[in-house]
Amino acid sequence: MIELAAVGGYSEVGRNMTAVKIGNDVVVLDIGLHMENYIHATNDEDVLNISAELLIKSESVPNVDSIRDWEGKVSLIIPSHAHLDHVGGIPYLCGRYPKADILAAPFTAAVLRNILNEEKIRIRNKIKTLDVNARYMQSDEVKVEFINITHSTPQSIIVAIHTKQGIILYANDFKFDLYPVIGKKPDFAKLRLMGDKGVLALIIDSTYAGWYQKMPSESVARQLLRDVLLGADNKGRAIIVTTFSSHIARLKSIVELGIKLDRKVVFLGRSLAKYVAAARDTGIADFTANVEVVKFKRQVSRRLKRIMKEGKDRYLIVMTGHQGEPNSSLYRLAHDELDFRLDPGDHVIFSCRTIPTPTNIANREYLEKLLTKKGARIFRDIHVSGHSAREDAREMISLVRPKHIIPAHAPLEMTSKMAELAYEMGYAEHKKYKYSPVAV
Amino acid sequence: MIELAAVGGYSEVGRNMTAVKIGNDVVVLDIGLHMENYIHATNDEDVLNISAELLIKSESVPNVDSIRDWEGKVSLIIPSHAHLDHVGGIPYLCGRYPKADILAAPFTAAVLRNILNEEKIRIRNKIKTLDVNARYMQSDEVKVEFINITHSTPQSIIVAIHTKQGIILYANDFKFDLYPVIGKKPDFAKLRLMGDKGVLALIIDSTYAGWYQKMPSESVARQLLRDVLLGADNKGRAIIVTTFSSHIARLKSIVELGIKLDRKVVFLGRSLAKYVAAARDTGIADFTANVEVVKFKRQVSRRLKRIMKEGKDRYLIVMTGHQGEPNSSLYRLAHDELDFRLDPGDHVIFSCRTIPTPTNIANREYLEKLLTKKGARIFRDIHVSGHSAREDAREMISLVRPKHIIPAHAPLEMTSKMAELAYEMGYAEHKKYKYSPVAV
Amino acid sequence: MIELAAVGGYSEVGRNMTAVKIGNDVVVLDIGLHMENYIHATNDEDVLNISAELLIKSESVPNVDSIRDWEGKVSLIIPSHAHLDHVGGIPYLCGRYPKADILAAPFTAAVLRNILNEEKIRIRNKIKTLDVNARYMQSDEVKVEFINITHSTPQSIIVAIHTKQGIILYANDFKFDLYPVIGKKPDFAKLRLMGDKGVLALIIDSTYAGWYQKMPSESVARQLLRDVLLGADNKGRAIIVTTFSSHIARLKSIVELGIKLDRKVVFLGRSLAKYVAAARDTGIADFTANVEVVKFKRQVSRRLKRIMKEGKDRYLIVMTGHQGEPNSSLYRLAHDELDFRLDPGDHVIFSCRTIPTPTNIANREYLEKLLTKKGARIFRDIHVSGHSAREDAREMISLVRPKHIIPAHAPLEMTSKMAELAYEMGYAEHKKYKYSPVAV
Amino acid sequence: MIELAAVGGYSEVGRNMTAVKIGNDVVVLDIGLHMENYIHATNDEDVLNISAELLIKSESVPNVDSIRDWEGKVSLIIPSHAHLDHVGGIPYLCGRYPKADILAAPFTAAVLRNILNEEKIRIRNKIKTLDVNARYMQSDEVKVEFINITHSTPQSIIVAIHTKQGIILYANDFKFDLYPVIGKKPDFAKLRLMGDKGVLALIIDSTYAGWYQKMPSESVARQLLRDVLLGADNKGRAIIVTTFSSHIARLKSIVELGIKLDRKVVFLGRSLAKYVAAARDTGIADFTANVEVVKFKRQVSRRLKRIMKEGKDRYLIVMTGHQGEPNSSLYRLAHDELDFRLDPGDHVIFSCRTIPTPTNIANREYLEKLLTKKGARIFRDIHVSGHSAREDAREMISLVRPKHIIPAHAPLEMTSKMAELAYEMGYAEHKKYKYSPVAV
Repeated sequence: MIELAAVGGYSEVGRNMTAVKIGNDVVVLDIGLHMENYIHATNDEDVLNISAELLIKSESVPNVDSIRDWEGKVSLIIPSHAHLDHVGGIPYLCGRYPKADILAAPFTAAVLRNILNEEKIRIRNKIKTLDVNARYMQSDEVKVEFINITHSTPQSIIVAIHTKQGIILYANDFKFDLYPVIGKKPDFAKLRLMGDKGVLALIIDSTYAGWYQKMPSESVARQLLRDVLLGADNKGRAIIVTTFSSHIARLKSIVELGIKLDRKVVFLGRSLAKYVAAARDTGIADFTANVEVVKFKRQVSRRLKRIMKEGKDRYLIVMTGHQGEPNSSLYRLAHDELDFRLDPGDHVIFSCRTIPTPTNIANREYLEKLLTKKGARIFRDIHVSGHSAREDAREMISLVRPKHIIPAHAPLEMTSKMAELAYEMGYAEHKKYKYSPVAV
Repeated sequence: MIELAAVGGYSEVGRNMTAVKIGNDVVVLDIGLHMENYIHATNDEDVLNISAELLIKSESVPNVDSIRDWEGKVSLIIPSHAHLDHVGGIPYLCGRYPKADILAAPFTAAVLRNILNEEKIRIRNKIKTLDVNARYMQSDEVKVEFINITHSTPQSIIVAIHTKQGIILYANDFKFDLYPVIGKKPDFAKLRLMGDKGVLALIIDSTYAGWYQKMPSESVARQLLRDVLLGADNKGRAIIVTTFSSHIARLKSIVELGIKLDRKVVFLGRSLAKYVAAARDTGIADFTANVEVVKFKRQVSRRLKRIMKEGKDRYLIVMTGHQGEPNSSLYRLAHDELDFRLDPGDHVIFSCRTIPTPTNIANREYLEKLLTKKGARIFRDIHVSGHSAREDAREMISLVRPKHIIPAHAPLEMTSKMAELAYEMGYAEHKKYKYSPVAV
Repeated sequence: MIELAAVGGYSEVGRNMTAVKIGNDVVVLDIGLHMENYIHATNDEDVLNISAELLIKSESVPNVDSIRDWEGKVSLIIPSHAHLDHVGGIPYLCGRYPKADILAAPFTAAVLRNILNEEKIRIRNKIKTLDVNARYMQSDEVKVEFINITHSTPQSIIVAIHTKQGIILYANDFKFDLYPVIGKKPDFAKLRLMGDKGVLALIIDSTYAGWYQKMPSESVARQLLRDVLLGADNKGRAIIVTTFSSHIARLKSIVELGIKLDRKVVFLGRSLAKYVAAARDTGIADFTANVEVVKFKRQVSRRLKRIMKEGKDRYLIVMTGHQGEPNSSLYRLAHDELDFRLDPGDHVIFSCRTIPTPTNIANREYLEKLLTKKGARIFRDIHVSGHSAREDAREMISLVRPKHIIPAHAPLEMTSKMAELAYEMGYAEHKKYKYSPVAV
Repeated sequence: MIELAAVGGYSEVGRNMTAVKIGNDVVVLDIGLHMENYIHATNDEDVLNISAELLIKSESVPNVDSIRDWEGKVSLIIPSHAHLDHVGGIPYLCGRYPKADILAAPFTAAVLRNILNEEKIRIRNKIKTLDVNARYMQSDEVKVEFINITHSTPQSIIVAIHTKQGIILYANDFKFDLYPVIGKKPDFAKLRLMGDKGVLALIIDSTYAGWYQKMPSESVARQLLRDVLLGADNKGRAIIVTTFSSHIARLKSIVELGIKLDRKVVFLGRSLAKYVAAARDTGIADFTANVEVVKFKRQVSRRLKRIMKEGKDRYLIVMTGHQGEPNSSLYRLAHDELDFRLDPGDHVIFSCRTIPTPTNIANREYLEKLLTKKGARIFRDIHVSGHSAREDAREMISLVRPKHIIPAHAPLEMTSKMAELAYEMGYAEHKKYKYSPVAV
């Protein structure tokens, strides 16, 4: 018998975690971190006090207490990609599963190691890397296979767990991008093969299940950036771009457009430095030749001062702060805490979407107000998402033809849209409930 | 074993229908009509062509084909109240269950009979009336009990089906109103008693499960009406009120305020006439002494002409058309198709909410545009809903302590909010899915 | 010639200030404080550093530099009512107009004095009180008249400035409430008289100009409160109500319902204490006999501890924090910083609307999340606004028939709705622009 | 003295019309048609009854009565481009100005002539064509200049009226597209030159003034189309695309992608035929070689029948109906009124945005519901707008540095955003109103 525990991430975005029990073996897929809750929870805390218990109680990490009886059986932890809501909880919770190996694609593993270094957390679990379309035999019962897929960070994978009862397919997060800026196209052939072999259950990213679209390619985001960077008049102006640090493809487009603009590209901030290093170390992209990366807070301010001096129109500045996070570089710049003056007509490009939580909306609104007061030109939403929309999901379902569809990675409003799609595609209506005799 | 078929109305508002199979007996709760789909479907059709098949295909009535194998066993059809989305499908579908009796409160029965007369439909099923808190023994296995509840039409009931496995409680639609304008307060004692006896499943109205409120009393709507009718300057002006024809309590408030204003109250339109007659015939409210009811189209126009002549400020006019329905009285008035002139400063009071479908929104927008062009003063949303909000639902669950909660009467966005509430109240999280061996 | 300077508050809610120059005399109407900007601006500041300049730059108070040339001429400062967005900037800016007297209704004056005491600010201007429908002769040229009006704080007035060119009428903020819970009804007769005498310009509250309604009476809010307090099951539960501290009528309803519930009413927090004292001192409402007011932070925690001990179901607790403000009493309670335990089923009643800025929305969402986690029942929006809606505005315009209408107290989206109403009522369309010869 | 009459289109999208009086000469810019109002107004009317009066009263065309005293002086009517909200009112209103010539770019003129033919309207005004960057001398006083600009239909122009007092610049509608799919880039040099010469007033498209963006290039729309047409699995499926008939660039992309897909492209419907013919006749694009255009209703159905027979996966079908218009081809297809069967998995691509009026929203919702019921895959919003966003507007203002900015082509919510931008850019705050003595 196969049991599946939806530990976290089935009604929200943040604390993703799924546990699959096959016989006596348990495989854990993703252990994510809910950033907003994490920040609230650790706000007034000493770093040394950040216990797993505190993080569970504050809903920063999945509530693993619900699978306490499985604890001794966990043999594998597989983060599907390098985003914090998938990998960020591992440092705090993997200690519960001391015998489990962590299995990840090289980039994901590199990012995880970076986090461990930075937070000074030591773990006992072994980290093993696996190619994005390799197979791994854990036991007679359990075979794991990676299937490379496109998403907004490199080396994202769909995980297939082969069992005697069929395949469990874990497709959190993905989109089908036929024109990716970096990396391979989705492996359609292998997905179809899974379908042929028999998929028992598909756990599927439902973030945009209510969008009646195919999610546009990352090459469209590149085009949008080209339009803004080469098409808007920026002579004599500063250009500041802010985007997701883990989005190496996006950064690549920015760098290449910076070169076309004949501006020197600088990346400012610890988070950018971390992901850029991981990309270089794993051979995905090496920006060394064309980009100057400045990591530490004090250096950032000094570097900006020099930019002011040399002429800010000679630079393209990439920095963190796209969600308006207090204390991000962009926030501090807007707040006059850095040695940089924004003048009327300077460009600030948000190559992202505001992730629509009330906190982000409030933070962005405040940040944009500060920027606008200085006369900056704001370019919002120069972005395309990395998540599947309704029509990507439909193709995924058509390809792998699962027996069961388990919507995930979204609040109920959206997972219910995925259920609607499944129903539309002929999955049973389940409109009859049966009650066996019950003693009340 | 008890089986429950969610035939319709579990992911939308309109085609409500639930079938409960207890042994060899099937009880049907509600057979509703989806008005918008019905209008689209029957638009170009000859009345004689309106078959059950057409109505099923067009999603105007519940798809009863899904319980075709139960057909012969249906012994009772129980409409919970007089709204069309609960009672309006009976004329078209009860023929499928020729042996079933229709069991209803007197007002509901009267409305059903009116519809049958009007549409010239003859049915073979017997219509039996039962008091709002009476019991009915159908067989050894099946006992039915009515529990009076507050809602936006009189004599609404919660249906309890007593079985050996426990009680099935059908609470579509309800709110807890302690200060109702008409009828009794909810029967809390009996609900608590149900809980004591053991409720197997509660089917519950989720229309506003996402509203963090207790739904305000109808007496608040009365206060809002008072405020607008007595508090706004209407000297020398026409006053037109439009509201739900079936909302006898609302009509009562309007009539009483009309008397206070010293204006003659007239009700215009077939639909108003129908419900007012049912209310009078069942002893709920008799407006005869104070209201002139004009039923037929031709008379409506003549009556309005006379109002113009006698002085429109001597009248309070109640008419249909609150959702902007094309060809409603108010629509035709705004369109200059009736012998009545709207002047700047005349009052049009919408004692309703726009039911937020795109069609209604478009219709209302167009109607209000016409009214505004003539200078009419528009008073929107002079209304309180008849549906439970989150805190009513919480109290219902606390009172009856069901083993299972089945959210109904809303799209998935809202039923999922009800699920959230259940979870909040400690109902099991169901985060573990189990798969027994499956041959793929 | 009369000149009118829209110093602040004509495209936002917060920094209200209007200056009217009649000959050599300047009358200032309101000097408001923008709370959100004020909090941001003074966050990291030492109280001693809070200069007028800082507050102007941070858009916390009106930018009075725009009428610098009028400075010497200001003879009167008239706050229209006791809300901070109308009176809160006076302490910081009245020093610019040392010769100006401050003229206010008794309650408004008392609140202003309280603020000055609390912030330890000394001003040189004389504070004079005037009855809510008295007249005041400032000079041959300038006569000021107060007209009592209904709003969400006591003794709100409309200010009439009589000049040889006609009357300037300042109607920020108001609604027409014919059933007020406290104070007199609006003085319609006097408003009509203003119209007869000739109103040159009406400056009018546009907060809800896009709401096609008459704003409901405060007596409706009272009914909503009754419904929630007497109609929801709170046996054995805590009841916490949070509302606007300055809303004495609302507090009165809460106190009276508390008595009906046979619970002891306690008011917790400095802000409540301040307004309650002002209401008592000016003879508006004396809660002394029925309410225990606890002012200081330390006492609040102690009092809550005692409530826990004595039985929280014997109390009705009123506290600050309705917008989710960090560090408000309710926030700290939800955060476990006070000696009070919220249990599942305890009631938290928000007798307010979330003022829809991103910051408030984020704060409220976070607060409600904390409350929900503890199982509290949340009752939102038990509230009716104190601002005029479209149909109140229409009546005001009909009564006073101004030559010019100047929409105020709202962003452009809403002031443009007021302009639309004016156009609807026959005010000239101004669709022809004329350009006299211009040297380019 | 120059006078400017904002006859229509300054607070809505639809009935655009501006009249500029220079001495004794009046130039009219655009005479648009409000389609929704037009349809409502002419619904039950005999075509012969469609008088200018009816159209004015129903707000289908601009209310030219407001410039009745200028009637005899109108010497020129200049439609800025071929959209109906700019050119569609000319047939009905140009008779009021019998002496006026109509001056238009070749494509615009061709479309106008097509409409006249189709509606069988004969006008006496001469239609003169002018190249998109030509000059035209009307009199000593009045010189007109066309400036080519990018928009969503070919040969759109900005109109410059040179007067002794400066230039009047009419920029309705435009965006700055540096990578247009068809036609020239915007003529930045000439716009800057206008600025140097002195622009008295800029009338500017404010449709998206509240979008903090530069509007993306049409080449992005092309990329989006490529993604959907080449990137989604459509083997064996029908592909139906619906878009704006006047959008020749979009049609070009569709045709080219159809060729890549190796499918035969057919255009169905009268409206498409009309614009395609105009594009061919004016040398803009000739689809003859690659597209089969079917104009008349009866032929459309026959052609679809043949497509069914030959295999629908051999075709790419382009048809009207993107806003869900009842009786459009797509509507009739979804309604089973055409000889074409939609099967599960067939593609329907909306290469447009739903223009957000309640009517369109309702129509689209109904259409999509029908399509979904048949199992069609829907791809929404494969589109980029032709209107300037905030940052295009900022560049326009920077280039031409007008003395006055007149926001147009949007409801007040948006024109107020344009005013906000102007204020941000340093245009005077106008916060002081002056009243000269007034006799009341």
